[in-house]
Amino acid sequence: MALIEPRTLKGFRDYPPELMIPREQMLEKIRRVYRSYGFAPIDTPALEYAEILRGKGGEESDRLIYQFKDHGDREVALRFDLTVPFARFAAQYVPKIGTPFKRYHMGPVWRGENSARGRYREFWQCDFDTIGTTSNASDIEIALVINDLMVALGFEKFTIRINNRLCLNGLLESLGLSDKSVPLLRSLDKLLKIGRDKVAEEMVREAGVTEQQAAQVVALADLTGTNSEIINRLEAEYGGNAKAADGIQKLRELLKVAERAGIPSERIQIDLSICRGLDYYTGTIYETFLNDLPSIGSVCSGGRYDNLAELYTKQQLPGVGASLGLDRLIAAMEELKLIPKISTPAPVFVPQFVPDKLGDYQRIARSLRAQGIGCEVYPEVKKLGNQLQYAEKRGFRIALIAGSDEFQNGVWKVKDLANRTEQSVAEAELAQAILTLLS
Amino acid sequence: MALIEPRTLKGFRDYPPELMIPREQMLEKIRRVYRSYGFAPIDTPALEYAEILRGKGGEESDRLIYQFKDHGDREVALRFDLTVPFARFAAQYVPKIGTPFKRYHMGPVWRGENSARGRYREFWQCDFDTIGTTSNASDIEIALVINDLMVALGFEKFTIRINNRLCLNGLLESLGLSDKSVPLLRSLDKLLKIGRDKVAEEMVREAGVTEQQAAQVVALADLTGTNSEIINRLEAEYGGNAKAADGIQKLRELLKVAERAGIPSERIQIDLSICRGLDYYTGTIYETFLNDLPSIGSVCSGGRYDNLAELYTKQQLPGVGASLGLDRLIAAMEELKLIPKISTPAPVFVPQFVPDKLGDYQRIARSLRAQGIGCEVYPEVKKLGNQLQYAEKRGFRIALIAGSDEFQNGVWKVKDLANRTEQSVAEAELAQAILTLLS
Repeated sequence: MALIEPRTLKGFRDYPPELMIPREQMLEKIRRVYRSYGFAPIDTPALEYAEILRGKGGEESDRLIYQFKDHGDREVALRFDLTVPFARFAAQYVPKIGTPFKRYHMGPVWRGENSARGRYREFWQCDFDTIGTTSNASDIEIALVINDLMVALGFEKFTIRINNRLCLNGLLESLGLSDKSVPLLRSLDKLLKIGRDKVAEEMVREAGVTEQQAAQVVALADLTGTNSEIINRLEAEYGGNAKAADGIQKLRELLKVAERAGIPSERIQIDLSICRGLDYYTGTIYETFLNDLPSIGSVCSGGRYDNLAELYTKQQLPGVGASLGLDRLIAAMEELKLIPKISTPAPVFVPQFVPDKLGDYQRIARSLRAQGIGCEVYPEVKKLGNQLQYAEKRGFRIALIAGSDEFQNGVWKVKDLANRTEQSVAEAELAQAILTLLS
Repeated sequence: MALIEPRTLKGFRDYPPELMIPREQMLEKIRRVYRSYGFAPIDTPALEYAEILRGKGGEESDRLIYQFKDHGDREVALRFDLTVPFARFAAQYVPKIGTPFKRYHMGPVWRGENSARGRYREFWQCDFDTIGTTSNASDIEIALVINDLMVALGFEKFTIRINNRLCLNGLLESLGLSDKSVPLLRSLDKLLKIGRDKVAEEMVREAGVTEQQAAQVVALADLTGTNSEIINRLEAEYGGNAKAADGIQKLRELLKVAERAGIPSERIQIDLSICRGLDYYTGTIYETFLNDLPSIGSVCSGGRYDNLAELYTKQQLPGVGASLGLDRLIAAMEELKLIPKISTPAPVFVPQFVPDKLGDYQRIARSLRAQGIGCEVYPEVKKLGNQLQYAEKRGFRIALIAGSDEFQNGVWKVKDLANRTEQSVAEAELAQAILTLLS
């Protein structure tokens, strides 16, 4: 029989242990932060009716959707993000669950993108949102959550860049450009990527504004300085506009509460040039950059929106949320060498080399497991050297060795595989000795 | 604009918080047990080349596969189990990773089954396997893992039913029926469902054996009693056959080691009538039943196989493993009323009712979170009664209340929402007081 070539589809990848162990640890840390704020988990199917998913992100986005007919000839599609399924979910469940409703959702999404750009066609999103309230307290909390997520994942140096669409809209209103806000903000969003000259050119070309008007919008990027300097200048220049004043007040409150709640003030920075291209956002906006690796882009982004589920229900559901880019963060951690090359989740290795003592090896291993210490017993009776070679290749930290002598004396040899030191430990003291070595 | 009806596909379902919270907790407990034995996590894509997945479970199974053409006109399919992707993965990675290789894999799979039978078209599997060794130590470990999984999930009364295909094959050999083992075992597998008369009839009809031969095979189910009684009778009746003797020896060793390792002996029971229909299994076989709810069937099943990845590689990869049926277990726990109706992952609720104190509410909440206590701050300033109503509906256990008086005196009211008792606690002692209430 001819063999089938074992391979994955282009744009898809396997996660072997040395990548999956850190991914699981990160998901667990992220989950703990969400839960600690009272965000509750939900899950939705990978497959939805195609009509639920189509037409949410424009034609380009529709082309990326994996669509097909199922066994019952229904048009179905794989979800391409977690926002649209959440909108559908909210329309169905919020009448029963009530508001405010805080949820997180972590799972894979699928997009048939051109993978030449180094993007994957299957990747995980980690979304969290509070819906059913317009209170700025929820906007502020999103910033606190982003801070705690980044710290939990081991980052200390990062910047949460915030803005408020109300300020941008107020500015455009005072310039008489409200009707052109969509193309203008879409261009402004490219400031970091293509620079201000090209943004201004695009504004003239695409939004049909004059060069002078484009220059006034782009000048927002010059409003830099400390948070209070920016707020003061904003207030002086645009505070007369009601929308802008509202946005300014909300940014001010965010900064004040975050400081009082204990977030180091250098981690939150007002940046009037971030606007996120999506027309969807209407209030606070967040982007998060690693200070040591800003080039990978924002690793956690989101904002406030007026109405989540308008396509599925007449109930108005305002909300605010953000999405953590897990794969981008893993790529960053690989680049910053923060991921250890370990392919076992258990720290302790028990070689097996006295025949007929398997019961004792597993007995002691189970007692360590019950104390929270992961412990693998090698399945074959082999030369010790071979078994230890296996252990070192996998990245075990400690070997727990007992031969006939040790069984007779009731002691075990505890071997630190990194520095190759060895000690004899009585059975009753094993867990303590191992925990000391591991800490 | 007409609304789109928010709905899920037939056979698919959403997980709102009150179902997703227990599912996440269970996955975490399962993960911890796998890891404690040194099983390492892997993940594979949801989508594979269709040729990788097709033809693995016969025509019926092929019809269930979700297949379609992707954007590049490739024939692709959604995985219908985690075994076939693992076989493909092993063919690619084992040459580099080496053996023995212990992996677990937890994730959704998709089958376009007739959902009228109450089955879902998307469900989770939790598989664990040790491959690359024929050592019985790995078979024994699978039974230990199943025990520890069930205990971690909160079950005390369950039975792991074990058998060994070698005993069945030896028996059939000694009856001169080796060439009919596939249809015979497929019929025997239905013993619990359709009873012994119908099984015997089917054997005569489908395998073409005589009534007397069918009776001899079905008589296996009469070999009951304690484990040692069964082993002794097996040995006396079939011990002369080499295959049977090998199987008997392996079952005996499993029981001995499991007992020495500390598994209560009543939890493992030899059952010669379990054989699992799949032709794939060649050695030890496992099924696991809840003593209080045997009717839902086996919740953790598996066995030893000779060659995992023969369709993709010439490397022989023997192994042993099992799969925990998460959804079936959740259904059982619902029936046994083991799932509390809680829709918040955080135990502590902080109502907000002094304007301008949001920073302090979040400050104290963050300090509790840092101590591992989940804590939700209500986003709006509202009447206390309304906020507490929300908290009770969600299932919070404690409310932490501070109004102007409390802020002035530096104390908080700690309210137990179940028994409605209340105490005043100084800020520095809050965490301790809450932990005491929660424990």
